[in-house]
Amino acid sequence: MVTERLAAVRRLMAEKGVDALIVPTADPHQSEYVGEYFKARAWLSGFTGSAGTLAVMADEAGLWTDGRYFIQAERQLAGSGVTLYRMGVEGVPTMEEFLLDKIPANGKLAFDGRVIAGKEGRSLAEKLAKKGVVLAVHEDLVGMAWKDRPAMSCTPAFLLEERYAGRSAKEKLAGIRKTMAEKQADTHLLTTLDDIAWLLNIRADDVACTPVLLSYALVTMDEAFLYVNPNAIGETVKTSLSEAGVTLRPYDAIYSEDFSGKRVLLDTAKVNFALLEKMGSAVLIDETNPEQLMKAVKNKTEIENLRHSHIRDGVAVTKFMYWLKQNVGKNTITECSAADYLESLRQEQEGFIEPSFHTISAYGPNAAMMHYSASPESDAQLKPTGLYLVDSGGQYYEGTTDITRTIALGPISDAERCHFTAVCRSVLALQNARFLYGCRGINLDILARGPIWELGIDYRCGTGHGVGYLSGVHEAPNGFRWKIVPERNDSAVLEAGMVTTDEPGVYIEGSHGIRTENELLCCKGEENEYGQFMYFETLTFAPIDLDALDPDAMTCREKGWLNSYHQQVFEKISPFLTPEEAEWLKQYTRPI
Amino acid sequence: MVTERLAAVRRLMAEKGVDALIVPTADPHQSEYVGEYFKARAWLSGFTGSAGTLAVMADEAGLWTDGRYFIQAERQLAGSGVTLYRMGVEGVPTMEEFLLDKIPANGKLAFDGRVIAGKEGRSLAEKLAKKGVVLAVHEDLVGMAWKDRPAMSCTPAFLLEERYAGRSAKEKLAGIRKTMAEKQADTHLLTTLDDIAWLLNIRADDVACTPVLLSYALVTMDEAFLYVNPNAIGETVKTSLSEAGVTLRPYDAIYSEDFSGKRVLLDTAKVNFALLEKMGSAVLIDETNPEQLMKAVKNKTEIENLRHSHIRDGVAVTKFMYWLKQNVGKNTITECSAADYLESLRQEQEGFIEPSFHTISAYGPNAAMMHYSASPESDAQLKPTGLYLVDSGGQYYEGTTDITRTIALGPISDAERCHFTAVCRSVLALQNARFLYGCRGINLDILARGPIWELGIDYRCGTGHGVGYLSGVHEAPNGFRWKIVPERNDSAVLEAGMVTTDEPGVYIEGSHGIRTENELLCCKGEENEYGQFMYFETLTFAPIDLDALDPDAMTCREKGWLNSYHQQVFEKISPFLTPEEAEWLKQYTRPI
Repeated sequence: MVTERLAAVRRLMAEKGVDALIVPTADPHQSEYVGEYFKARAWLSGFTGSAGTLAVMADEAGLWTDGRYFIQAERQLAGSGVTLYRMGVEGVPTMEEFLLDKIPANGKLAFDGRVIAGKEGRSLAEKLAKKGVVLAVHEDLVGMAWKDRPAMSCTPAFLLEERYAGRSAKEKLAGIRKTMAEKQADTHLLTTLDDIAWLLNIRADDVACTPVLLSYALVTMDEAFLYVNPNAIGETVKTSLSEAGVTLRPYDAIYSEDFSGKRVLLDTAKVNFALLEKMGSAVLIDETNPEQLMKAVKNKTEIENLRHSHIRDGVAVTKFMYWLKQNVGKNTITECSAADYLESLRQEQEGFIEPSFHTISAYGPNAAMMHYSASPESDAQLKPTGLYLVDSGGQYYEGTTDITRTIALGPISDAERCHFTAVCRSVLALQNARFLYGCRGINLDILARGPIWELGIDYRCGTGHGVGYLSGVHEAPNGFRWKIVPERNDSAVLEAGMVTTDEPGVYIEGSHGIRTENELLCCKGEENEYGQFMYFETLTFAPIDLDALDPDAMTCREKGWLNSYHQQVFEKISPFLTPEEAEWLKQYTRPI
Repeated sequence: MVTERLAAVRRLMAEKGVDALIVPTADPHQSEYVGEYFKARAWLSGFTGSAGTLAVMADEAGLWTDGRYFIQAERQLAGSGVTLYRMGVEGVPTMEEFLLDKIPANGKLAFDGRVIAGKEGRSLAEKLAKKGVVLAVHEDLVGMAWKDRPAMSCTPAFLLEERYAGRSAKEKLAGIRKTMAEKQADTHLLTTLDDIAWLLNIRADDVACTPVLLSYALVTMDEAFLYVNPNAIGETVKTSLSEAGVTLRPYDAIYSEDFSGKRVLLDTAKVNFALLEKMGSAVLIDETNPEQLMKAVKNKTEIENLRHSHIRDGVAVTKFMYWLKQNVGKNTITECSAADYLESLRQEQEGFIEPSFHTISAYGPNAAMMHYSASPESDAQLKPTGLYLVDSGGQYYEGTTDITRTIALGPISDAERCHFTAVCRSVLALQNARFLYGCRGINLDILARGPIWELGIDYRCGTGHGVGYLSGVHEAPNGFRWKIVPERNDSAVLEAGMVTTDEPGVYIEGSHGIRTENELLCCKGEENEYGQFMYFETLTFAPIDLDALDPDAMTCREKGWLNSYHQQVFEKISPFLTPEEAEWLKQYTRPI
């Protein structure tokens, strides 16, 4: 099938005189997850991973993806004629190097200009220009060949009322205009869906797990425009947007706007190449969208709501843990059925909308794969032995949650107990950090990573990421990481109101995987002659499985931290449990 | 006296048509400490602090210095007519702003081009050029007025034999030439005294506490030149340098070299302005001197020697602690006499050359001043109560040491005990860190700072600095600090062989000051699938005063760290003590 599709696309390329075609994994908004309409790379190559770029030429094709997907890509590309290029492996050329090498001088490179970030496209265009290569970016060749392409998503938008959002769209627009004035911009082009959703207090269901609306926004000093499929906007939303001074325009109309002579505040790392090419004589003020920091710093209402949603989420997870401990080995439970049951428990919680990401439900060695996703083929049955890891979360009107617990289903090995205890110590050390204002994730990461490093082990990822409010579960600019990775954009100073996950782990290939994840709200503590002290309030409440813990490997201080956390878990969660569940929770939050 | 000197300099300025004169605190080598000849700013202004810059105009003069010296500068400048500009205080103009504002258009600014760094001078020149201001940098106006100026230092150079240095000058030169080739340089200009001393395995006594030789060096692919006062070089040194392929030239001859057409590797942040102006048509490869990293990574011989010198140094400090505990309250001891006694104990140690910096000997509230220096006027008498802090070090053939201990001279307050214990926990946490290769000080700083931050207190400085080998006691590019301060140049990746101090503290103004300082050698641990693990070997051995400690405020793990450290202290130090001292040390290194 893939070979037929590739052949069809290659016929189009030949007709148009195109030497090479790039098909990335992106929508016009540089979203982390994309809707079905935008899954052109998966359609054309057969590779369904969340990250990867395909390059097609007349007689060869390559797919570039990272270490998470080497195995999956190899399997899915088999027989397609597409070569797998393993990113980051020594000696493997980057896609850019490949293109510079393979496209003939004065050749033609095509891509859909909407789905490549402006800055990235410009950098590529500059390099290829030296070889006389020209770009064709206004046609979607894959789209032409893709006869049964799903329609672009158009789900009904809904308002996030002020009791959930804390600030009105009007107030937020005023804040943005203040920033625009400071930066001497008269126009602000915003294309990132989570920023638009935050700014206008609207949500929809256009991207799986992320309740956003496919749209563009344009803000001037006295007007604001939302470019959106009119079918997505009902009367209530229309009226409310109109009251906030927002005018509706068709989704694609953004490409017909005239920016000449304007001073445009935009982020060229986010605005797509096609739009950036439309800027003409505009003066570009190229900066991170101001919405990013504003939405990362949750307001009082959002914080109060988050506290509620996390308790509801904790109730679902606690009930799940109880159910699992009671039923494993008695009834048939698999990774998939467990995940489904957990989702059903979340469904029972007030204000729950959808999962905030695809649940990672992983038993035994499967849990050692950090990004494991159970499929019908891999779906392992849970047995009353060893460890089971579940990383899940919910989208609630009162916020977004993300929690991981690793649960002993029966006897576990000494290594598993040792690693589980180290991970527990890690989570607690970071969640109990006290620090001066000005610290970034890079300063604090070792608090979590240290106990794992002491074992001569590392988890090869950050310790945590920012979380949105009824928005993306991964949100810039805050995070915990020991090296600054510029493209991750997660090394901002930790501000009061930011929410960041604390999720260290141990992953032993072929054996077991352990992760414990709590979300931490950054708060102001004492301010004195030394500066503003900061601390974390833990938002996540569910027991850390005492069955898997070795209290003897913990200091008194660490035990104190755990006991105090568990006491809070019991106080907050038990009122929402059945008597049997509450009795169980009492036992599983007992002081050690 | 200062007013007469200023008047004399101003007469010269008028004669030469100079509108403003800058007199910084520097020698032609950007040394941290400078010889008497170069103390022009102190001579002209009366202010003797180690950092500060004077600007003189016809009818006003200003001195810029930082927070450490506000009180001292205010006192010393009183009646001089020189205005104190407090650097970093809001609303206070920088010297650059002052000059840009005050020098008339098309005016003339003078400074001795040898004592301002090239990069800094160029940046200033560019800004002033916009006002048409010209520079006069080839005359030393202060020198002309300074009739009884001390002679430039010219102490006899001595060789650091290979059993001390570990590598011959020849080998080091070969290493530098390899780097030059990589960077396509044909000439390397080196002006930093500690780098020259390291490269050529020579030392002298031209700068207080830093055993370096006033000199410049030039390395080409097949020759090397040392520019030095010939009187400093005896026959042995001359022969040895000659064998290493090094030719001697007079100190000032560097200013007559012709660099045109050369590709010169140099660091414009270190090479002085006068020399940089001589570069003419040379192509400048402006980078950190490669010697910096090479000398920071101590070789095997240096490491083995360092272990010895630190034991000797620890013997002196331990004997001092014993003496202090026995004699305080019985015999008259003052801050100055205590420091003298400690120096006499170091004098008894094999291979000791001189102190590595001016000892900080501070009793009670004096210790709260981080950079306190006891003077005849301030010299407090030690009483059998409260805390006494002593920060000192030595230059040995076998390396440079830096150690701080805080000692209870009798009863101490609860706050003192609490703070002493926190500092002890801090030092131990950092010295027991285990981490992956790639970490910088910014990743680890919180291990030391965390226990202090937990008390709502901060020490307003880095946690530690790199240390040279029979060289500067403050050495780039390694250090521990939670914010990157570019001009400190101490945020390099921690490499095996680097030595860094671990010296957290608590400073309570008007009450007490506590600091405990050990030197840590960075070492390679296990290398496995996760990467290269690293750890620290503690080089410093002297007891941490158990009389001031509250073991109940320490975790079992921390107590274990202290007991294990103290056991090593006893094993390494006791063989060099009298039976009474050894008995005392046994008691003061007992397990808690």
